[in-house]
Amino acid sequence: MDDALLVHYRLTPAPGENAADKARGIALEQTAELPARCIPETLLETHVGQLVDLQQTDDNTWNASIAYAPELCGGEATQLLNLLFGNISMKAGILITGIDWPPALLEHFGGPGHGITGLRSLLHLPPHQPLSCTALKPMGSDASALAAMTRAFAAGGVDIIKDDHGLANQPSARFGDRLHACQQAVEQVNARHGGRSLYFPNVTAGPSELLERLAMARDAGCRGVLLSPWLCGLDSLRLARDDFGLAVIAHPAMTGSYFGSEHGLQPEVLLGDLFRVAGADAVIYPNTGGRFGFSLATCEAINDALRRPLGGLHAAMPAPGGGMDMARAAHWIDQYGVDTMVLIGGSLYERGDLRSATRELLATLGR
Amino acid sequence: MDDALLVHYRLTPAPGENAADKARGIALEQTAELPARCIPETLLETHVGQLVDLQQTDDNTWNASIAYAPELCGGEATQLLNLLFGNISMKAGILITGIDWPPALLEHFGGPGHGITGLRSLLHLPPHQPLSCTALKPMGSDASALAAMTRAFAAGGVDIIKDDHGLANQPSARFGDRLHACQQAVEQVNARHGGRSLYFPNVTAGPSELLERLAMARDAGCRGVLLSPWLCGLDSLRLARDDFGLAVIAHPAMTGSYFGSEHGLQPEVLLGDLFRVAGADAVIYPNTGGRFGFSLATCEAINDALRRPLGGLHAAMPAPGGGMDMARAAHWIDQYGVDTMVLIGGSLYERGDLRSATRELLATLGR
Repeated sequence: MDDALLVHYRLTPAPGENAADKARGIALEQTAELPARCIPETLLETHVGQLVDLQQTDDNTWNASIAYAPELCGGEATQLLNLLFGNISMKAGILITGIDWPPALLEHFGGPGHGITGLRSLLHLPPHQPLSCTALKPMGSDASALAAMTRAFAAGGVDIIKDDHGLANQPSARFGDRLHACQQAVEQVNARHGGRSLYFPNVTAGPSELLERLAMARDAGCRGVLLSPWLCGLDSLRLARDDFGLAVIAHPAMTGSYFGSEHGLQPEVLLGDLFRVAGADAVIYPNTGGRFGFSLATCEAINDALRRPLGGLHAAMPAPGGGMDMARAAHWIDQYGVDTMVLIGGSLYERGDLRSATRELLATLGR
Repeated sequence: MDDALLVHYRLTPAPGENAADKARGIALEQTAELPARCIPETLLETHVGQLVDLQQTDDNTWNASIAYAPELCGGEATQLLNLLFGNISMKAGILITGIDWPPALLEHFGGPGHGITGLRSLLHLPPHQPLSCTALKPMGSDASALAAMTRAFAAGGVDIIKDDHGLANQPSARFGDRLHACQQAVEQVNARHGGRSLYFPNVTAGPSELLERLAMARDAGCRGVLLSPWLCGLDSLRLARDDFGLAVIAHPAMTGSYFGSEHGLQPEVLLGDLFRVAGADAVIYPNTGGRFGFSLATCEAINDALRRPLGGLHAAMPAPGGGMDMARAAHWIDQYGVDTMVLIGGSLYERGDLRSATRELLATLGR
């Protein structure tokens, strides 16, 4: 299968478990869900994963590669995810370390609608400038308080002001109230100061409400949204892109449990490849040294997965966050490159005056 | 907060990490996402989780309980999940072991639309009889082959014939073709033999397609569907219940990575409480002794979470599966009780003649 979806696994067999059996078990479990002897011969060749490589790497670790016919995804992100890790999420010692994507599948899923270049274009930012993003918080603030923060951040010149991903449709600030108050705030400040800040509301919700909120965001004049693919489904990224023309920042909520050392999907596969292929323009991840535990190598692997050449897909913007100090923002741009959007929240709030803190942040970024 | 959502955690602090700091960190991380000093005092009381209990249980394990105002969920399953484990999925040593649900929240989310009693009523089955379910497979079979299997299973008298959860919208059997072929097959056999078998198609898909497939399933005369909440969002259960009046069997695809011993959500919380509260009428889980690794105690804890008194919510039907031998089906009913739906797939296919194998299965169940 030259055009196969080739998935690379690191296997850690349990005591007494044979690596080859484990690998072949994955190929069956993720497709036919039947013993090989129950599968018609024609389907065994076309609709079951084929183990194409198996190498022992140390005493109890093996690298396995399994080729799947792209048709098994049925062209849908939900089934792609199911094929990759649906049932084997409930087994042990299986880590997806990489995916070789067939060009036709990449073209079908389509990747970012805007990507790095498109985000720069929305923000009128030249290629040599890094991007900045902040978050409206805390939960419980009412729409007018959130609009006031939006005004301050916009007056300070931040590029993207996004809702905190916990702002949903709570009584304290209903989605519609918040959307209109914050979008109006950012437009007013832009008009007054000639800025180009954008407000991205969090549209994460169930299927009907997601459709409704995407439409409301577009109709209110937003150019993009925040959503958490693991809360509302990976395919929600495509929906925002294709049916609403909105840019999307993807949030990693609920994904952390897959990042085991022996089980799951490596962060660069899930937050890098999968989020990008499914349509994220920017991907938030917990930067090393913040409140979460990613290593520098993992952060750089995510950056690479988001930006590397991948069929004809746009590159997506890494958005490291999760407790970054504004004083270190320039350091991270040096480390990760200008095609990075630093997400700074708490560190601005700690300064008290959001507008001057934002200006200071941008100055450190040479903006 | 008498009416709080009370979440119980088992904490395993890292070396040098203080348990009380870790617990208070969770309360902040899952709500304000700001240091306490940046949060307005009024919100600190109402919109941040409150640590109400912390007990050391052994050298390095602590039980913590945090109370959250139900309003923080904003009435939505997506945000409920985010509140429970969104950001802390990316931290280490945090396991949710239980949830005390405030009655108002249970009433709001609503639970199963049909539940055990409703499923029995759809199937015209008296309370003393266990339920049987099987799956159409393998992926790659065309609609007419799947319809032929449906006829055989229905003629054998199985209660529910569901799509395998990997059957999405692949070219081999498009959703619409499969739906109509299998639904017609089951209706014809029922009419001829007086049976009451039901066909539940897999509607798992992105938001727009999910809505479309739910409507198609209802319009085709199906009484229920299969869906994987972790692929298309937990709120999809409510949608199927409220907007389409369909019964739902929930599949655990992608959930296994949360079932760590020191991190995640215990299976009875995720597959039990969460699936039930969000609207699942039956929940598939990997039975002990099959292809997956749940212990008997975990399976019984899931059963209990699905059936125990919980506000005014209907009890949901446990559906143990994942490689169960039909010869052991009666044993599992003895073990788990008659309010159980045995899910037998491969073991029927191995017999070759699906109709006689199904009859034999039902005979062992005293049907």
